[in-house]
Amino acid sequence: MHPYRTHSCAALRASDAGSNVRLSGWIHSKRDHGGLLFIDLRDQTGVTQIVIPAGTALLETAEKLRVESVITVTGEVVLRAEGTVNPNLPTGEIELRARELEVRSQAAVLPFQVAGHENYPEDLRLKYRYIDLRREKVRRNILLRSDVIASLRRRMIEHGFHEYQTPLLTASSPEGARDFLVPARLHPGKFYALPQAPQMFKQLLMVAGFDRYFQIAPCFRDEASRADRSPGEFYQLDLEMAFVTQDEVFAVLEDVLSGVFAEFGQGRTVSTAPFVRIPYLDAMRDYGSDKPDLRNPLKITEVTDAFANSGFGLFAKIAASGGSIRAIPAPGAADRPRGFFDKLNAWARENGSGGLGYIQFDATEGAKGPIAKNLEAERVEQIRSACGLEPGDAVFFAAGSGDAFVKFSGLARTKIAQELDLIEQGAFRFCWITDFPMYELNEDTGRIDFSHNPFSMPQGGLEALNTQDPLTIKAYQYDIVCNGIELSSGAIRNHLPEVMLRAFEIAGYSADDVEARFGGMLNAFRYGAPPHGGSAPGVDRMVMLLADEPNIREVTLFPLNQQAEDLMMGAPAAVEPARLKELSLALDLPKPKVTVRPE
Amino acid sequence: MHPYRTHSCAALRASDAGSNVRLSGWIHSKRDHGGLLFIDLRDQTGVTQIVIPAGTALLETAEKLRVESVITVTGEVVLRAEGTVNPNLPTGEIELRARELEVRSQAAVLPFQVAGHENYPEDLRLKYRYIDLRREKVRRNILLRSDVIASLRRRMIEHGFHEYQTPLLTASSPEGARDFLVPARLHPGKFYALPQAPQMFKQLLMVAGFDRYFQIAPCFRDEASRADRSPGEFYQLDLEMAFVTQDEVFAVLEDVLSGVFAEFGQGRTVSTAPFVRIPYLDAMRDYGSDKPDLRNPLKITEVTDAFANSGFGLFAKIAASGGSIRAIPAPGAADRPRGFFDKLNAWARENGSGGLGYIQFDATEGAKGPIAKNLEAERVEQIRSACGLEPGDAVFFAAGSGDAFVKFSGLARTKIAQELDLIEQGAFRFCWITDFPMYELNEDTGRIDFSHNPFSMPQGGLEALNTQDPLTIKAYQYDIVCNGIELSSGAIRNHLPEVMLRAFEIAGYSADDVEARFGGMLNAFRYGAPPHGGSAPGVDRMVMLLADEPNIREVTLFPLNQQAEDLMMGAPAAVEPARLKELSLALDLPKPKVTVRPE
Repeated sequence: MHPYRTHSCAALRASDAGSNVRLSGWIHSKRDHGGLLFIDLRDQTGVTQIVIPAGTALLETAEKLRVESVITVTGEVVLRAEGTVNPNLPTGEIELRARELEVRSQAAVLPFQVAGHENYPEDLRLKYRYIDLRREKVRRNILLRSDVIASLRRRMIEHGFHEYQTPLLTASSPEGARDFLVPARLHPGKFYALPQAPQMFKQLLMVAGFDRYFQIAPCFRDEASRADRSPGEFYQLDLEMAFVTQDEVFAVLEDVLSGVFAEFGQGRTVSTAPFVRIPYLDAMRDYGSDKPDLRNPLKITEVTDAFANSGFGLFAKIAASGGSIRAIPAPGAADRPRGFFDKLNAWARENGSGGLGYIQFDATEGAKGPIAKNLEAERVEQIRSACGLEPGDAVFFAAGSGDAFVKFSGLARTKIAQELDLIEQGAFRFCWITDFPMYELNEDTGRIDFSHNPFSMPQGGLEALNTQDPLTIKAYQYDIVCNGIELSSGAIRNHLPEVMLRAFEIAGYSADDVEARFGGMLNAFRYGAPPHGGSAPGVDRMVMLLADEPNIREVTLFPLNQQAEDLMMGAPAAVEPARLKELSLALDLPKPKVTVRPE
Repeated sequence: MHPYRTHSCAALRASDAGSNVRLSGWIHSKRDHGGLLFIDLRDQTGVTQIVIPAGTALLETAEKLRVESVITVTGEVVLRAEGTVNPNLPTGEIELRARELEVRSQAAVLPFQVAGHENYPEDLRLKYRYIDLRREKVRRNILLRSDVIASLRRRMIEHGFHEYQTPLLTASSPEGARDFLVPARLHPGKFYALPQAPQMFKQLLMVAGFDRYFQIAPCFRDEASRADRSPGEFYQLDLEMAFVTQDEVFAVLEDVLSGVFAEFGQGRTVSTAPFVRIPYLDAMRDYGSDKPDLRNPLKITEVTDAFANSGFGLFAKIAASGGSIRAIPAPGAADRPRGFFDKLNAWARENGSGGLGYIQFDATEGAKGPIAKNLEAERVEQIRSACGLEPGDAVFFAAGSGDAFVKFSGLARTKIAQELDLIEQGAFRFCWITDFPMYELNEDTGRIDFSHNPFSMPQGGLEALNTQDPLTIKAYQYDIVCNGIELSSGAIRNHLPEVMLRAFEIAGYSADDVEARFGGMLNAFRYGAPPHGGSAPGVDRMVMLLADEPNIREVTLFPLNQQAEDLMMGAPAAVEPARLKELSLALDLPKPKVTVRPE
């Protein structure tokens, strides 16, 4: 017999009754019951009930053990008495009657309980992460994460991709977030940087002739912690393809992501390929967001015309001064009480808007409310028709101008759908946002800036750059969005040095500037570069969506805490002066803050 | 038609003749031939011959292009004329008669050629690695590496393992090689360390109840470069299992490694499971090495007895003073000329030995040579018989004492087999070296030190520690060796705090010492730890063996050079003073060396 186990703790069934077996695991719980001791023995797979017979030496040993001690139990599988069968447990029909018990490891008093669902402070959990990871929910999340990554890999390889490891000790990025630096001992005064993403390397791989690259890539940004981003490291499904159109990048990710989300969605609905494609401008118009949550059925309608020169003075004035009025339908809300509308109005004011006007299309009385009272009937009808509203529906209006206003209309769309409980449950709704503008006007400087990634290929290429108003030029730049969460941006890259130099020139960079800052990449493109493009959906975000966890630390094995500390390993830590000397570094600590006491 | 390609450059066959196709790729080579232009068009998969017809505008465009420019060619697949078929090329039966040609990227004059097999300086190749990677051999190595890693992953998952990502920003290791440090901006004066290996984390995963862990793990050591180790980062197949015996760890790795080596061995012979297991002491005795190359059929035989008090005074003296004489057979070497034996003797002297004595067992004349002349016949016969020698064979002798001598006998075994051309070709011979001693005597201090890993479980546990001579205690510690190269060590770990404290006590550490240095791990073991063990074979070394490359940089995508520089990206590099300030650091550069001129 194997010294530790013949079966896992989830394996035994009624058909095993009578077998002599051995299990090993953790004491999940203990219950004294009529002289017998019942132990729930747990391993990674599940739990089996152990019975320690009364009046035995085993019982004496077992009684002294704390929960979470590790034991090996040998004995006979017996059917549970009727009435004690546990239908919620795969092993619930049997129990193991112990004949031998070996203690593998005695547990001390625990800092918190593994069994049960009590909440404990995060820092305590992270300090004892090896205990925390035994708890059902986080254990399930970590296994899910591992399975998701394995599935992503399998699917990418099936699509003809190879995984390549790009360097982790590399050069600082010329732009972007803050790098983590690594002092180079052999090169005093010099530093490596940990990669923010393997962007340069994956493009160089295309230049090197490797057709389809992917990597479950560790990325590093020295940024403040957010719920959806760890301070420090995170992982993305980094991919790049040569000789491809945007549609081919989409097709690969649609197949891979819809496959993975269906595989691990536990019955939740998943968008099937092809995902909806929404040009950026349409997204801003219809959803007030470039990350629309398509589980929300509401669409925004521009109704400025209906208010221009109308009897509703406030909106007429906004329309006259170049502002706009955007309508957000509220299906079935006509008969909601006054408080419902007041609450949304108050919410709008708290969120930086003047308010949310509204019209109720009462099923019997027709259009109602303060706006309807002042607005000409045919204009009311124009709005009803434009928004596709029926009797019994209502509509809200946001009025204003500029980017913040458009964004507010998007927030209002979300808020209204939430209040009306219209967000589809149990679904993953994907879409592509496409055709991002190449440039935008910097309202502070009056100059033209890149609006997203300067390395994307402008639609229309050099000719567009030379002949079009820059603000009308679109890029082969796209985002993939799921349930309102951006999983990744991506692009068909600009692989032509002359197009890149011209694109930067429009944004105010001289050729010398560009050569100085991005010369490495430009040079590589001068030795034969294929057209190429890719994307890099965040692995952590995918797992968060699948696990329905808003906090990235719940889906990360050993995360840093919000202060970027590893409380379990004690990192970061001071190092010996000799180590610093060796790295040609000295500490230059901030002066302690002087506290001035009031006299 | 797809804008870039309907087929890859390795796809077209005679059966495609007559089809209208489109290919994209790099101009591998160009040949003018009777007014036509022939282009070998290359992509990741292979090469297709393009014919640019004479007297066309295409020809004018194509003639101007340098090799390595990227083009898209559209035209008809035609059968090559008889006599011009190239049987060495999968596409050698056809060529593509170009009708359209689009230039995707023009190549400048190259720093070195992609076609051909010329050697170029490594630093030049690394600076333009994106060009170097297009060359056949390195491209094949990198694809092999990717395929090997994918296969390792697939096989580990089939064995019930999950892959988990352990942290890359973590704490300094309490011992081992030098860490790379990462300044923690939010914690002035403190540093993260990049992991030398996920050793602690994988053991904590076992404590956390995850049964079978693996990871293609990036590891970092700030060590001098060696041919078989990159300065900086390297990858290992890190694995750990709970509730296992040593034999189960072996069984998994035997299946995975023999599978991978058979899959990518291109017909080379591979040891099948179970691999030979050789206790450490036997390996030192029979091979003079704990990394024996089993492709070498020779075994060393201890023949001190045969020389003790014998007529061969030199060896008799060595035997009398406690030294030993080890015999290394040289099958079939009896009739080698004197120069053969002299050369090996000279080699021995160059390698720190007094020389290599020998006896030739001549098929007709019997035992010959200076030793045989002075050694009693029955002793000569004793040696012949002990070494299993036949007429026609010879035998060499190494004499001396101590570890260096044993090691020298191993080197002599290798050298003799090489000279006799006895090393098996086209084979991967694996073995396990087991039962490493737990402790060794430090000859300088006279104290007892750990001989390998202090965290391995001593065989016999606490009882052995309390009752045995420490120098006789063996550990559940093992190495896996292939063709004389150590792929990894591994161990069944010591998961019991009281056993660990006692093990360290024997090596002179107080309990306080141990708690101070390894308290994190000890504490984790106090909350219920399963018996566990694992290993971590080096991925780079596996690929080097499979690719038959002695230099790790030939199997690494973007390696640092020997000075730990990335010449392509320009890393490491100076950083702006503001960045250092932000990290609470200042440079403390070594003083320039003063050169004193002779007056």
